[in-house]
Amino acid sequence: MPRYRLDIEYDGSGYAGWQRQDDHPSIQQAIETAIHGFCGQAVSIRGAGRTDAGVHAWGQVAHVDLENQWSDDTVRDAINAHLQMARERVAILAAREVPEDFDARFSATRRHYVYRIICRRAPLVIEKNRALWSPRPLDAEAMHEAAQRLVGRHDFTTFRSVQCQADSPVRSLDRLDVTRGGFDGLIEIHATARSFLHNQIRSFAGTLRLVGEGKWTADDVQIALEARSRKACGPVAAPEGLYFRQVDYDGLFPV
Amino acid sequence: MPRYRLDIEYDGSGYAGWQRQDDHPSIQQAIETAIHGFCGQAVSIRGAGRTDAGVHAWGQVAHVDLENQWSDDTVRDAINAHLQMARERVAILAAREVPEDFDARFSATRRHYVYRIICRRAPLVIEKNRALWSPRPLDAEAMHEAAQRLVGRHDFTTFRSVQCQADSPVRSLDRLDVTRGGFDGLIEIHATARSFLHNQIRSFAGTLRLVGEGKWTADDVQIALEARSRKACGPVAAPEGLYFRQVDYDGLFPV
Repeated sequence: MPRYRLDIEYDGSGYAGWQRQDDHPSIQQAIETAIHGFCGQAVSIRGAGRTDAGVHAWGQVAHVDLENQWSDDTVRDAINAHLQMARERVAILAAREVPEDFDARFSATRRHYVYRIICRRAPLVIEKNRALWSPRPLDAEAMHEAAQRLVGRHDFTTFRSVQCQADSPVRSLDRLDVTRGGFDGLIEIHATARSFLHNQIRSFAGTLRLVGEGKWTADDVQIALEARSRKACGPVAAPEGLYFRQVDYDGLFPV
Repeated sequence: MPRYRLDIEYDGSGYAGWQRQDDHPSIQQAIETAIHGFCGQAVSIRGAGRTDAGVHAWGQVAHVDLENQWSDDTVRDAINAHLQMARERVAILAAREVPEDFDARFSATRRHYVYRIICRRAPLVIEKNRALWSPRPLDAEAMHEAAQRLVGRHDFTTFRSVQCQADSPVRSLDRLDVTRGGFDGLIEIHATARSFLHNQIRSFAGTLRLVGEGKWTADDVQIALEARSRKACGPVAAPEGLYFRQVDYDGLFPV
C-alpha cells in the first residue's frame, strides 16, 4: 500500500483538537472522513503532533496508507474537495508519496511552533481567535532574554500539564526566541525542539508574558524552571495564539 | 458638543457593509448602538468611506458628536466594551477629540486600500474570508506594469458599478502598486486616491487578475480604460480581499 505524507493547515477554533474524540469534532476525524469520501477507505492517520482545542497549524504533518496508487496532486485536491464540501476549516497544502518507513510522528527530528501575541488597547476583531490579545504593551526584549534561560536540556516539570503522558519531563529545547512581528504590537515566540511536553509552549508563553509585563524577571523564570514543580509555572496562555508551524525530517525525508 | 474622531477596524464578513440598512446588520449600526449603550445618546456617525458587504477595514474613520465631554481613552474603551458585549466584529482602535469642523468624509484628502490575493492550490482556511483565493499562480510583475496604465486622472466609467452614485466618473488615481506580500503566494494591490468610485478597486483587482493569469496584457487594460464602458471591465473581484487601510487628513488634522 502506498504511503502518503500530508502537510496540513487548519484553523483550530472550532475543533476539540487534532486527535479523534467520540463526541467532539477533531481535525483528525475531518481528514479521515474526507479520505473516506474520496476513496471509500476507512483510514486512521497519524499526525506529527497532537494539538489542543483552539490551536492552529500552518504545517502539521500526517501520514496515511492508501490501497490504490494516486498522483500526489490527486490526493491533495480530492481530500481538499471533500473537506470543502463538509465546510471544514482544514486544508491539505501538499500530499506526496513517501517511503513505507516514513512515520509522521516517529521520523520527525524537529518541531517548530509560533505563539502570537498582539498588544493593543482595542480587542482583536480581524485577528480574533488567531492570536492572544494583550491589552497592555509587553517588553519583548526582556521576554527574549528570560526565554534564553529555558533553552537547552532540562527537566521541564514546571512547564508541562499535569495530564502530560510523556514518560520523562526532560526535553532539549533548541530555540525559544521572542521577536517583534510584521506589524506594530505583534510579538512572536518561536519554539523549536525534537519534541515538546503537553502544554509546554503555552506554559512558556504564559510565563514569559509575566516577564513582558514586568511582573517577573529572568531570574524568576530560572527559579521556576529549577523548582521542577507545576505550581511554579505562570498561567498557561490561551490556545488561540499557538500555531504548529513546521516539522523537520532531516536527511531521511527532505522536503 | 465635542466631536470625536474614531479609527475603526472591522471584519466585514458578517455585515451587509458599512452603511446602516433596515433589515441587515451594518458596521455603522453596530457602532451607533454601542455608543447608545455607553452614553444613552442616539447618534448618527459619518464614515470616510462606505465599504460593501464583506469588505474589511484596518483604518476606517468616522466622526461623532457627543453631548458630554469624555476623555479620549474613555470613549474608545467604553464603545469597545459595548461592541464586545454585542459580539460585534468591530473595534475602535483610537478615539480623539477633534475640532468641530473635522468631517471624516469631507475633510479626507486621501484614502488607502489594499486588496489581498493568496495564490496556492489548497483552499484558504486560516485566511478564509480574509483574502481572495487564486488556485493558480499570478504574475505580480505583469499586474504591476498593467496597473500603471490606470494611474493618473481618467474617466473610470469602465471600473465603476452601474449603481455608482457619484456625479462624475473622473477620478485621480495616485497609486496602484502590485507587490508580493509577507509570505509565499501573497499578492497585494495597493490603491490610493482622494476618493474612489463604487466598486472601483474590486474592478481593478478583477481586471488585473486577468493580467496575472496571462489572459490580458497591459494594452488590454488600457483599451478597457479608454472604452469608458462598464462592459469592458474584467469580472469584479470578491469583497473578502479588500481592506480599507487608512485615511489621510493632510495638514488640517494630523494623526
